[in-house]
Amino acid sequence: MMENQMVAAEPTAEEAAALDELYRDFAAESLVPLWTEIGDLMPMHPKPAAVPHVWRWNTLLPLAERSGELVPVGRGGERRAIALANPGLGGRPYATPTLWAAIQYLGGHETAPEHRHSQNAFRFVVEGEGVWTVVNGDPVRMSRGDFLLTPGWNFHGHHNETDRPMAWIDGLDIPFVHYTDTAFFEFGTERVTDESTPDISRSERLWAHPGLRPLSGLGNTVSSPIGAYRWEHTDRALAQQLALEDEGHPATVHQGHAAVRFVNPTTGGDVMPTIRAQFHRLRPGTATPTVREVGSSVYQVFEGRGAIVINGEVNTVEKGDLVVVPSWAAFSLQAETPFDLFQFGDQPIIERLNFNRTYIEGTTK
Amino acid sequence: MMENQMVAAEPTAEEAAALDELYRDFAAESLVPLWTEIGDLMPMHPKPAAVPHVWRWNTLLPLAERSGELVPVGRGGERRAIALANPGLGGRPYATPTLWAAIQYLGGHETAPEHRHSQNAFRFVVEGEGVWTVVNGDPVRMSRGDFLLTPGWNFHGHHNETDRPMAWIDGLDIPFVHYTDTAFFEFGTERVTDESTPDISRSERLWAHPGLRPLSGLGNTVSSPIGAYRWEHTDRALAQQLALEDEGHPATVHQGHAAVRFVNPTTGGDVMPTIRAQFHRLRPGTATPTVREVGSSVYQVFEGRGAIVINGEVNTVEKGDLVVVPSWAAFSLQAETPFDLFQFGDQPIIERLNFNRTYIEGTTK
Amino acid sequence: MMENQMVAAEPTAEEAAALDELYRDFAAESLVPLWTEIGDLMPMHPKPAAVPHVWRWNTLLPLAERSGELVPVGRGGERRAIALANPGLGGRPYATPTLWAAIQYLGGHETAPEHRHSQNAFRFVVEGEGVWTVVNGDPVRMSRGDFLLTPGWNFHGHHNETDRPMAWIDGLDIPFVHYTDTAFFEFGTERVTDESTPDISRSERLWAHPGLRPLSGLGNTVSSPIGAYRWEHTDRALAQQLALEDEGHPATVHQGHAAVRFVNPTTGGDVMPTIRAQFHRLRPGTATPTVREVGSSVYQVFEGRGAIVINGEVNTVEKGDLVVVPSWAAFSLQAETPFDLFQFGDQPIIERLNFNRTYIEGTTK
Amino acid sequence: MMENQMVAAEPTAEEAAALDELYRDFAAESLVPLWTEIGDLMPMHPKPAAVPHVWRWNTLLPLAERSGELVPVGRGGERRAIALANPGLGGRPYATPTLWAAIQYLGGHETAPEHRHSQNAFRFVVEGEGVWTVVNGDPVRMSRGDFLLTPGWNFHGHHNETDRPMAWIDGLDIPFVHYTDTAFFEFGTERVTDESTPDISRSERLWAHPGLRPLSGLGNTVSSPIGAYRWEHTDRALAQQLALEDEGHPATVHQGHAAVRFVNPTTGGDVMPTIRAQFHRLRPGTATPTVREVGSSVYQVFEGRGAIVINGEVNTVEKGDLVVVPSWAAFSLQAETPFDLFQFGDQPIIERLNFNRTYIEGTTK
Repeated sequence: MMENQMVAAEPTAEEAAALDELYRDFAAESLVPLWTEIGDLMPMHPKPAAVPHVWRWNTLLPLAERSGELVPVGRGGERRAIALANPGLGGRPYATPTLWAAIQYLGGHETAPEHRHSQNAFRFVVEGEGVWTVVNGDPVRMSRGDFLLTPGWNFHGHHNETDRPMAWIDGLDIPFVHYTDTAFFEFGTERVTDESTPDISRSERLWAHPGLRPLSGLGNTVSSPIGAYRWEHTDRALAQQLALEDEGHPATVHQGHAAVRFVNPTTGGDVMPTIRAQFHRLRPGTATPTVREVGSSVYQVFEGRGAIVINGEVNTVEKGDLVVVPSWAAFSLQAETPFDLFQFGDQPIIERLNFNRTYIEGTTK
Repeated sequence: MMENQMVAAEPTAEEAAALDELYRDFAAESLVPLWTEIGDLMPMHPKPAAVPHVWRWNTLLPLAERSGELVPVGRGGERRAIALANPGLGGRPYATPTLWAAIQYLGGHETAPEHRHSQNAFRFVVEGEGVWTVVNGDPVRMSRGDFLLTPGWNFHGHHNETDRPMAWIDGLDIPFVHYTDTAFFEFGTERVTDESTPDISRSERLWAHPGLRPLSGLGNTVSSPIGAYRWEHTDRALAQQLALEDEGHPATVHQGHAAVRFVNPTTGGDVMPTIRAQFHRLRPGTATPTVREVGSSVYQVFEGRGAIVINGEVNTVEKGDLVVVPSWAAFSLQAETPFDLFQFGDQPIIERLNFNRTYIEGTTK
Repeated sequence: MMENQMVAAEPTAEEAAALDELYRDFAAESLVPLWTEIGDLMPMHPKPAAVPHVWRWNTLLPLAERSGELVPVGRGGERRAIALANPGLGGRPYATPTLWAAIQYLGGHETAPEHRHSQNAFRFVVEGEGVWTVVNGDPVRMSRGDFLLTPGWNFHGHHNETDRPMAWIDGLDIPFVHYTDTAFFEFGTERVTDESTPDISRSERLWAHPGLRPLSGLGNTVSSPIGAYRWEHTDRALAQQLALEDEGHPATVHQGHAAVRFVNPTTGGDVMPTIRAQFHRLRPGTATPTVREVGSSVYQVFEGRGAIVINGEVNTVEKGDLVVVPSWAAFSLQAETPFDLFQFGDQPIIERLNFNRTYIEGTTK
Repeated sequence: MMENQMVAAEPTAEEAAALDELYRDFAAESLVPLWTEIGDLMPMHPKPAAVPHVWRWNTLLPLAERSGELVPVGRGGERRAIALANPGLGGRPYATPTLWAAIQYLGGHETAPEHRHSQNAFRFVVEGEGVWTVVNGDPVRMSRGDFLLTPGWNFHGHHNETDRPMAWIDGLDIPFVHYTDTAFFEFGTERVTDESTPDISRSERLWAHPGLRPLSGLGNTVSSPIGAYRWEHTDRALAQQLALEDEGHPATVHQGHAAVRFVNPTTGGDVMPTIRAQFHRLRPGTATPTVREVGSSVYQVFEGRGAIVINGEVNTVEKGDLVVVPSWAAFSLQAETPFDLFQFGDQPIIERLNFNRTYIEGTTK
């Protein structure tokens, strides 16, 4: 594939001097020519600065525990969260150009104070329990396998009701919001506004019924009104897809690969305007087709062992491990055991702005 | 309110004769003047020909049973269905101008053959069990409280696996489709294409998980892909709304009145393009505000006893009774006991064409 | 094609008597069985009661003139409009089940008083000038070739500023609104609220600029905010399509057949929720493919001579003639001379409710 | 307003050492804590790195002319375009974080070769003529006041048919596409594919008719199908708004401030998924309210003299001057003479992702 490059006519010394002067004058006037920049600026296909990378759960968790001993949680720092900093992104706490992914840690009986911000947030729990996140006054239990929402501009805080610490994954659009200059932030109360610990949140009681919508909630909402997508539902939906496949019916995305998307029940679309969240289950021995997609993702292994293959590199992963997949990387999953993975990505941004493209390797483009 | 009326200038005999001749010439040329018709054609507010009416379950069911003895079910007649014929609509089998509502009856071990049509259909089961409806090859159990879909152009047949007969309610847009000349029909097989009797349909296994969507089904569908909305979910959603109300949280439509809409999970909108379906639960002693709405509805009492008040007339109803509410009728529900009602209506037609209006009595218009 | 028919088992005398009694009991209880009605109610394909029919302009116009002498225009009768009554629709003033089409006539210096109604209305001018229609206080000139809108619930009246009478075509959704019980009506002033006679309406000055939208009007509207679609624009758009075709570029719908749809500039969709309006121009000698479409239309010849072929019958037509095309009729246009036709139809109803189907003869269904 | 800040408990020496070690271990594992970054990452309101800045046309144009003498235009460099580099954005050729704005210069009889890319592009002509841009084979004349589109993935090249050079403004979403890793690029032919110089493009002949849509183009398109929005239409639309205001009718956005948005006629929405384009006309002496909006814009003065006030700083500007307005800057326009300005911005990105907010100074937030 031919690449963009600068025009390469050999100038005379006089011309070179004139050109130098021109470029100095550009700089003095805050101007930059296209012709010296186009190769980097406008490549033939996406060339992400972000790189594929794996963070190991058994490295992350001990570091989070050490933070728990050394760093208080409270107003100002707000959260004891440690972000994945993509090695290609210059040390910024960005998993991908658009996405923040962090491990958050809350010790026994600690409280992370309430605040709200325009950034959209979710939590995913790979293990543990005992924390309630309180979203606009609605206490939401956090347990293994649960996917929990805090869409933009909802007040939220967390508190640990037990003696034992708990850690989970936070996902947000912090880098995107920072980049687009769309950030707003407001402090709330120091303690959570409702310290009760119900098994099920009010949002679920109102909204988490399949194909049913309360008449008191007929207006569509930008983000999902469901605060918690419980593991029991996700697990059952995936199991049913594989069972249907066994019975010979269309249900899975690929042979041996069940998958669900978490959606906003008022629209059927993504849970939040900037973040897609999905869950995958592969049968042992399954390998998915190699696909390139515009948009970046983060995967976390929920259970089992297998490999995430990115641009030909085989990354063996197991429970809790986190992997970043940059835009347009050639990507495939391979299951050694039964293999469950949580995924989130920025595809709603890409699709709403009509930049989405997909290329399945082995097909003509 | 001033009504439209004809211009009433007194003509001379000569003028009257000329006018008569003009009207005869109109008729001969298939023409009709507006000025003699406007009062009926363009009233100040909707003046439905359809009237409020109650059909009693304990009248309907014995008639259905007699049909079961006298009329075979099979190809040609297709279904042993007996339609509510609104007394205001000239003997046509129309519950309202747009909606068909019928009791369907299937004897032990009978089969209603497969066919498909552009008309959208659902079934609602007020009592009984033992029949499976097979929709595009997917067997769907029918049990008390279930709301079951057969959207337009899906093949479907029913078969009774037991020795006992079963009756249920069919709702369709037959009158609307007939009126708009949009009817298509196609015969299928004499017997259902899958005689198995699973507890749960494949459509539910794939789609009836709250806030989850299979990645194999990301395209939106005109009608809901869920074949059965089970009573257990409807019941739980309603109970939760009342419980939340008890705890002081917004959840019900009015004090003491819980309600859900059945929706298409791919869009959050109505289950089918022409039919809305909802379920109501009132606490004993509750009376809803009197409301006029553009669009017509049919209610069936599912459980309990109360009154449906229409244009000031109090209709006492109990389990299985069916009531028609015409467009713009003043309407209220009153609960004597705990009171559960199923409702369907043509509001999606009204709303998609922007004719919707609502007037709550006691407010200024 | 096999048709639906009644079940034809021969009953015994006793059975026949029991069946008679059953049917009497049905009737007494306002019930009608499906099995005796299904053939008419649910045909294999649309079987409209409405028939294709032609009304001649040179018959209509003299009748309108006689009305002008005999019938006053004013409050009560509201408009001197004479409606096409489809011979298949039992003498009702309905061009098709859903659509009203009438010739309206206003004598020199007459005024049709202001009113508003939920029915959507437009006017199309095949010849003449001198009348202004005042829509919500905005005076709109009416001239040959103009297509003029009065969407639902906008006050409107007409006044003739000249000594000469003027006639034009009104199109409304009166039958549909009557059928669905969605009619509201309100009287306005006896005289129009603005008697000025500008060449161009305020709505055009604000909205009729290609690809431009006022910042004071960023909210989308249910119906088009443009009060008048002027002939000069329609004519130019059609001429350009044929010129582009001559130059070898894709532009026309079929070879020799240019066509435009009148649209709402805030959405790009139809001008009103229930009515589609289009304009066709055929080169001499052009015949369009024979097509069946769900939905009904009315055509008026604007200029030229040709034929409208419906279900095989060739109807020769010329300037001003009006033709009704029922749903699913096999339809084709044939141009003898350069042939311009205005068309309106109920396709937005059909499409918004997902009943649309098209069949092009000579293709497999 | 209280700002986010680090937790400030004074640690012991031992604690400080442990914390240092923790931070080193974070860095080694590509991790960054939130609590040291939150103040910058999640501010109380947008704090753009981009700054307000003015580029003068009488500085830009001579620099472009010098480039014309020293730098060839052709394959590789592709375009002789000189980009505004916001002084706050580290020397990158970005007018704002999301937007590219450049002056492009084409000498007499030069050709900029054809290519296509996923980036969306437009051109705006403040003065000059003689160049045709050829978009997917359709030659589009470029003249003063015209706004010209090249949406993503359309082939395009430019050629100058005259002896005189011409310069204009390019606007693209290059920074956003680079940031989101959504860039694709493909070379086309060296010369433009159609060297004819029609007065009006085929896209205009098909699409630029007010409220009319060709039946050959009923599918909606992601971007506008209109290649050129001509000055005569923009000028007339603005003049009509001011005339309507003079006559006492609502038409302008503020008293003395007429404005139009360029839109996609298939949807009524913005011309391209990422870029909004608008045109403003102020009467002499008019000052607009001071407004803060999420999203960034670039203004170019088309005619007249006035001031652009940003965060209290009064920037006097005249014909051709370009000004950048960062997100959430307090912004107002002041007209000394009749004052015409072209504006483009990234608001479609902001709105499609639901980050839009507006604050009008002097009101409560």
